[in-house]
Amino acid sequence: MSSWFEKHAATLDKALDACARRYSWTAYPESPSSRVHGTELPARGRREFEALLGERFGIGLLPGHDGWVGGEVSPFSREALGIRYPRLDVDTAFAAARRAWPAWRDAPVRERVGICLEMLARAGDPLALFVNAHATMHTAGQSYIMAFAGCGANALDRGLEALAYAWKAMRDVPESADWERGFGGPENARLEKHYRILPRGPAVVITCATFPQWNGYPAVMANLATGNPVILKPHPNAILPVALFVRSARELLVEAGFDPNLLTMVADDRDHQVTQQLLLHPDTAIIDFTGSARFGSWIEDNCRRAQVYTETAGCNSVLLESTDDLAATVQAIAHSLCQASAQMCTSVQNIYIPAAGIRSGQETVSFDAVCAALRDAVDAHLCDPAKAAVLCGALVNDGVAQTIEAMREQGARRGHIVRDSAPYAHPDFPAARTATPLMLAVDLAAADLYGEERFGPVSFLIRAPSREAALADATARVRERGAITSHVYSTDTQFLRHAVDAYQVAGASVACNLVDMPINFAAAYSDFHVTGLTPAGNACLTDLAFVTSRFRIVQAKWRSDAR
Amino acid sequence: MSSWFEKHAATLDKALDACARRYSWTAYPESPSSRVHGTELPARGRREFEALLGERFGIGLLPGHDGWVGGEVSPFSREALGIRYPRLDVDTAFAAARRAWPAWRDAPVRERVGICLEMLARAGDPLALFVNAHATMHTAGQSYIMAFAGCGANALDRGLEALAYAWKAMRDVPESADWERGFGGPENARLEKHYRILPRGPAVVITCATFPQWNGYPAVMANLATGNPVILKPHPNAILPVALFVRSARELLVEAGFDPNLLTMVADDRDHQVTQQLLLHPDTAIIDFTGSARFGSWIEDNCRRAQVYTETAGCNSVLLESTDDLAATVQAIAHSLCQASAQMCTSVQNIYIPAAGIRSGQETVSFDAVCAALRDAVDAHLCDPAKAAVLCGALVNDGVAQTIEAMREQGARRGHIVRDSAPYAHPDFPAARTATPLMLAVDLAAADLYGEERFGPVSFLIRAPSREAALADATARVRERGAITSHVYSTDTQFLRHAVDAYQVAGASVACNLVDMPINFAAAYSDFHVTGLTPAGNACLTDLAFVTSRFRIVQAKWRSDAR
Repeated sequence: MSSWFEKHAATLDKALDACARRYSWTAYPESPSSRVHGTELPARGRREFEALLGERFGIGLLPGHDGWVGGEVSPFSREALGIRYPRLDVDTAFAAARRAWPAWRDAPVRERVGICLEMLARAGDPLALFVNAHATMHTAGQSYIMAFAGCGANALDRGLEALAYAWKAMRDVPESADWERGFGGPENARLEKHYRILPRGPAVVITCATFPQWNGYPAVMANLATGNPVILKPHPNAILPVALFVRSARELLVEAGFDPNLLTMVADDRDHQVTQQLLLHPDTAIIDFTGSARFGSWIEDNCRRAQVYTETAGCNSVLLESTDDLAATVQAIAHSLCQASAQMCTSVQNIYIPAAGIRSGQETVSFDAVCAALRDAVDAHLCDPAKAAVLCGALVNDGVAQTIEAMREQGARRGHIVRDSAPYAHPDFPAARTATPLMLAVDLAAADLYGEERFGPVSFLIRAPSREAALADATARVRERGAITSHVYSTDTQFLRHAVDAYQVAGASVACNLVDMPINFAAAYSDFHVTGLTPAGNACLTDLAFVTSRFRIVQAKWRSDAR
Repeated sequence: MSSWFEKHAATLDKALDACARRYSWTAYPESPSSRVHGTELPARGRREFEALLGERFGIGLLPGHDGWVGGEVSPFSREALGIRYPRLDVDTAFAAARRAWPAWRDAPVRERVGICLEMLARAGDPLALFVNAHATMHTAGQSYIMAFAGCGANALDRGLEALAYAWKAMRDVPESADWERGFGGPENARLEKHYRILPRGPAVVITCATFPQWNGYPAVMANLATGNPVILKPHPNAILPVALFVRSARELLVEAGFDPNLLTMVADDRDHQVTQQLLLHPDTAIIDFTGSARFGSWIEDNCRRAQVYTETAGCNSVLLESTDDLAATVQAIAHSLCQASAQMCTSVQNIYIPAAGIRSGQETVSFDAVCAALRDAVDAHLCDPAKAAVLCGALVNDGVAQTIEAMREQGARRGHIVRDSAPYAHPDFPAARTATPLMLAVDLAAADLYGEERFGPVSFLIRAPSREAALADATARVRERGAITSHVYSTDTQFLRHAVDAYQVAGASVACNLVDMPINFAAAYSDFHVTGLTPAGNACLTDLAFVTSRFRIVQAKWRSDAR
């Protein structure tokens, strides 16, 4: 048996402690700075990425390989990556996973967890992180820095967190027990009992176009650690980051003496999608899905015999009631409107402002003045093109640009445009598909516009008759469409407490008066990401519920006092 | 806040320890013996039960009360109990649960768990246990002794076990955390975070006709402890035991300052069943079901938006391959065929015997001789009418008698009758609906007969071409119909290990060579009851997965370094 568990035992212990006490910690390098890595490693990472372009992706033989697929286009260069991935026959892929399964199922929990720890460590190796950053940038549209940290260390930390919870849940089951009692006879009966962790079965993990690793790593770790083979299905626009991880992980599985088909990737393209075929396959025992709320809901309704975990999207809101630092407040909110072009699951969309304005220190600031301050704060974030590029990245697909067009037209008709969206000039990629935030002022009558997710840099400054009306509407949206983040800004302690309670009872977590930090940030080991109580997802990354149903317990018992 | 948590803290700690180390322990009195309780208390229990007969059950005002229902008939006296229970309007019952919910939801976890511990303690009070024993006997058909222990202490222990797991899962979430990290600015951001346990919503708990408390207590405890209101729906044949518990628990809730509608009972009768209305109610967030596999499967397929936990039934089997003590082996198996007239979820139905016979010590015993030994062992259990009555109890309903009729006819045609069933004369209740075991010898071609649950004292002695064929067929039944207990008797270590693995991989737990004890016995704190991997149920009593999804975590965070 390998010594990977021992090698990474301190990391696992630290992750368990961080989950229990929920402080800030990371096990992986977050910064791509040459001050940390020198200049050669980043350059090598770029070269390795560039060498992948226009080629068949070398991932070895995958089961059921019957052709090639792949149509990724860089949101920055707008050029096709030209990378082709094996196309797999779905039934063959499942059959291979089932064949690979028994040895993994029967391996000691420590061995599986050790291999998973090593899998993360290899993905967290600096060179791998640089390659991953370029791969993420040119598929998911994230800026290089965001791609390095957000889809590198931050995502790996979530994977390690899920692994720690899986370990904790399995460790809760003892391996054996002695049991003794009388049944009225002359002697007690003594039994020896053995408890066995039995994984549920093949897991299908669907990753999304914008942050494929962030939910992907936790799902893969939770499934593999508990003994389930995994079939990864990347979004057709963002295959490469997943493929890099799968290649590395499969090599490790072989090195560890296991069948690599414990982890396969079934890639597809937009014209021949295999997602439903995977989800409805009779072998599918577990589904982890990140993507649209509509499809997530379809899965919850239709994939009845699988254990389903979803993170989709919601109508994230800000309720701006009062502040003692308007400048910092609008700066913080504006950051969320810009970051990753508001294509994060934590991006804010709906900003409620009472019609009578808000208290700012001793003054009242009118609705229009708050809108102007928010607009100016967005502009301030974007005035330096280099910084704007780092902050905003690119639009992941043309659909986002179309959403902006549609909302501009509707917003102008139903309310007014506080700030129009326009492409910004990316300093390195002139062809990049970019857009600055579109900000629309509307009132509650436009709930059909803002009452669902408008994916991308579109926000609504919602004029509410009162703070109570704002809170009622915001929490109604949480119930109806879900939310992943919610913010309240208020200096009125009583109202703040009331608002937090109202959001929480509606199923949402709340951040209060967050300023001087990126308010989109969700911290591994600390923030329970997604509550599971709203249409924005039925699962939380990561809690015990995320892992406890991925395995079951079977036992054997016999009399230990018999001959 | 009450001191019930403190009062019962040692009991909870002991339960947690027992769950972790899985030894034998009970927190409640198991024996009804007058050596323990004297003679007055048992007599008083009987008088209290008798005083209930023919009356409206005094449970105070239940929400939406619009009439009376109840048609229970004693399987022993065959007389109507004549007890009438409030009939409730379902919508009103849910509305009342929702009104009662917030105060309970927002109560400290310790307070809720303390009240639950007291609820169990009151149900475990000796007088309550005596009343409960009579109530269970004259509804579920259990013998007095079985009703006292199996539906008393044994069931309460399972409730305490679920409560301990709920406490453990909730305790895993800290109340608050300090979090600090830099985001590139001059100073770190420091956040204070608070984590709140949020229950999922109203739970509907469906109890069964034969052991209403055994699954009922764990479900009620797991739900109430995690903050969910509960609507109990007893089987129309076994309302009284549930009603006694609900009355006591509601009194306690009032005493503790809570709305008693946190726990209501919606009784019905066979002609006007409300189960589907409850299950499909839009307010239903959680379902706990014990009952038929068919209905359990319907719930899993149709109650999509609720968290569903089922324990149904399976084809429990014995694989008899070899033994070094045939007398003890057949005695143990025969006990399972007799106990509670094989109306337990752990009763054995299918006994596989190789056609060439089995090795017993140095001898080979033929198939027919094994059948004869099993028949004789059953007869030996029943020769003393008083003991037979204690062991077998009564048939819970006429359907069981009809099953015996049908299987006798089919078994004689398709195989042969090894032992016919007949009523036995109950010493105390001449009218009792009783039946001794029907034992049918068949071969694998009769899989349509034995391949599903035949509820009641019907067993199949299955002539298998070989031990491997026996194992293959038995595990195929597990996959197809589920199993709650499986037994292997073999002195061949290698075969035994192979058989255990095959059963486990099919999703079943296995008992090996159990003799000299009641093999149906499932021990709280020790046996993970139901694996959740077969059609016999999707949930286990009790593991972390049974409790972790009954609540969710919402958080609030703010900068602790701000003004």
